[in-house]
Amino acid sequence: MSANDSSLSAFLDTAVAAARKAGEAIREGFYQTKCVEHKGQVDLVTETDKACEDIVFGLLKQHYPNHKFIGEETVAASGTFELTDEPTWIVDPIDGTTNFVHGFPYVCVSIGLTIGKVPTVGVVYNPIMEELFTAIHGKGAFLNGNPIKVSSQAELITSLLVAEDVPNHDKPIVDAMTNGINSMLPKVRSIRMLGSCALDLCGVACGRVDLFYLTGFGGPWDVAGGAVIVTEAGGCIFDPSGKDFDLISRRVAASNPHLKEAFIKALQEINC
Amino acid sequence: MSANDSSLSAFLDTAVAAARKAGEAIREGFYQTKCVEHKGQVDLVTETDKACEDIVFGLLKQHYPNHKFIGEETVAASGTFELTDEPTWIVDPIDGTTNFVHGFPYVCVSIGLTIGKVPTVGVVYNPIMEELFTAIHGKGAFLNGNPIKVSSQAELITSLLVAEDVPNHDKPIVDAMTNGINSMLPKVRSIRMLGSCALDLCGVACGRVDLFYLTGFGGPWDVAGGAVIVTEAGGCIFDPSGKDFDLISRRVAASNPHLKEAFIKALQEINC
Repeated sequence: MSANDSSLSAFLDTAVAAARKAGEAIREGFYQTKCVEHKGQVDLVTETDKACEDIVFGLLKQHYPNHKFIGEETVAASGTFELTDEPTWIVDPIDGTTNFVHGFPYVCVSIGLTIGKVPTVGVVYNPIMEELFTAIHGKGAFLNGNPIKVSSQAELITSLLVAEDVPNHDKPIVDAMTNGINSMLPKVRSIRMLGSCALDLCGVACGRVDLFYLTGFGGPWDVAGGAVIVTEAGGCIFDPSGKDFDLISRRVAASNPHLKEAFIKALQEINC
Repeated sequence: MSANDSSLSAFLDTAVAAARKAGEAIREGFYQTKCVEHKGQVDLVTETDKACEDIVFGLLKQHYPNHKFIGEETVAASGTFELTDEPTWIVDPIDGTTNFVHGFPYVCVSIGLTIGKVPTVGVVYNPIMEELFTAIHGKGAFLNGNPIKVSSQAELITSLLVAEDVPNHDKPIVDAMTNGINSMLPKVRSIRMLGSCALDLCGVACGRVDLFYLTGFGGPWDVAGGAVIVTEAGGCIFDPSGKDFDLISRRVAASNPHLKEAFIKALQEINC
C-alpha cells in the first residue's frame, strides 16, 4: 500500500469512527421525544442534528486540523461555503431529518472527503438499521464490510426508481416534481420515495434500487459521501441533464451503467 | 381470560408461528438470485411467494381445518374469493413483492383473521428488518412484543404521508395518482412511497408515518392483517371517501384520530 493509500485508509477509519459516534447520538434521539425547531414551513432541524455535526467535526478536526470542513448546520448558520482543491470534509450530520423527527428508520450520517474537488472517501451510516456504507476512490464499496455492487438491470421497464419530495412545496416545484413522476412512471416498474438522498445513492450502490434522481436538495453534504460509494460500486453518478455530476449544483442522478443512457433520455424528456 | 380470549390468543400464536416460518423462506430468497415470472407488465410473482403461501396455509389448515382461507396466490390462480362470517384467514405471503425481487428490505408476510367479517387477529412480519407487528381485537397492538400507538400529530402540515404506486401504469391511473400527490403535497410535510401496503398500515400504527391512503391495490390480503394492528394502536382505518372501511373494496386510508377529519377532507378534494 502506497503512502497515499495508507492516508486514505486512515481517513476512512477516522470518518467511520466519527460516523459511529454520531450514530449513537442519532439512535438515542430517535427513540426519544425530540425538541424541534422550524426552518421554514416544512424543513426541520433538531438538537441532535447540531450535536452530531459537533461530534463529527470535533473528531475530524482533532485528526486533520489543516483540512477544510463544510457542514450542513454550519452552512445553514453562515449561509455560505467554498469548495477548494484542499482535502475537504463535507458532512450531513443527519440526512433524512424529517424521517428522524417522525421516527421513520431511514436516517443516516453522511461524511464525504473531497481531494482536488473529487469525492475520494465516503461513509454513510444508518444507525437505526445498522448499515454502514463505505468507499475509497479506486478501492471498491462496502456495506458492513462486504463488497457491494449496483444492480444488473438493463431495461428501464423492469427498474425500480427512487425519487424524492423536497421541503419547498411552492406550486411550481410541486408541479415539476409530480409531472416528472407522471412521465417516469409508465417507463419503470415502480417508484419509491424514502426521504434520504445519501441513503438513496447507497440504495443504487447496493442494487436495491436501480435509478435515482433529485434536484433542488440542500447542498453537497447530501451527496458527497454517497457519490464515491455509488461509483465504487460500479454505478454512474451524473447530472440529470446527462452532463457531468457537479457536487455543488444540487442536482444528481445515479444508475448502473446499462441504464444510464435510457435514464438520461427519460430525464431529458421531463427537462429535469 | 375467557374461552374466547384464549382462542384468539391461540390463533395469534399460530399465525405468528406461520409468519416466522414463512419469514425464513422470504429471508432465504431475499439474498438469492430469484426466478421471476411475470403477471402483467410490471407485476411480479416469485417462487418464494408461492412457497410462503403453502407454508402459511399448511400450518393454519393443520390447526384450523374448519376455518376458511383466502390467499393472494390462490385467488390469483382461481380468480375468485368469497368472504363470509366464518373465521377466515386472509394471507398475503409476500407483501412488497417488487421490493422482494429488487432486494429492497421492505417486505413482509401479512396474516389476518376475520370473524364475522371483522379483522380480529393481525400479524405482519418483516423478516429482513426483523419487525413483527401483532394485534388482537380489543387487546392492543405490538411491535416485537412492545406496545405501539399511532402518532400524536394533530395537523396535516406537520404530518408525514405515505402513498403508493400501483402495478397498473395505464395513463388514467398514473394521472389520478400523480394529481392526487400534487394536491396532497402542499398540505403535508412530506411523502414517502415504500411499496408494501401492509407495512404502511403498520407504519401508521407505530407512528412512523401519520397518513396513508391507497386505492386499486390487489385485494383484502393487503389490508386484513394491518387493519386490526392500526386500530388496536389507536388509529383509524376508513374508506378514502370518509365512509366505513370495507375489507374487500380495495380502498383504504388510515391515520390517527386527530388527523382523520382533515385527511378525509383532503382526500375528498382529490376524489379519492
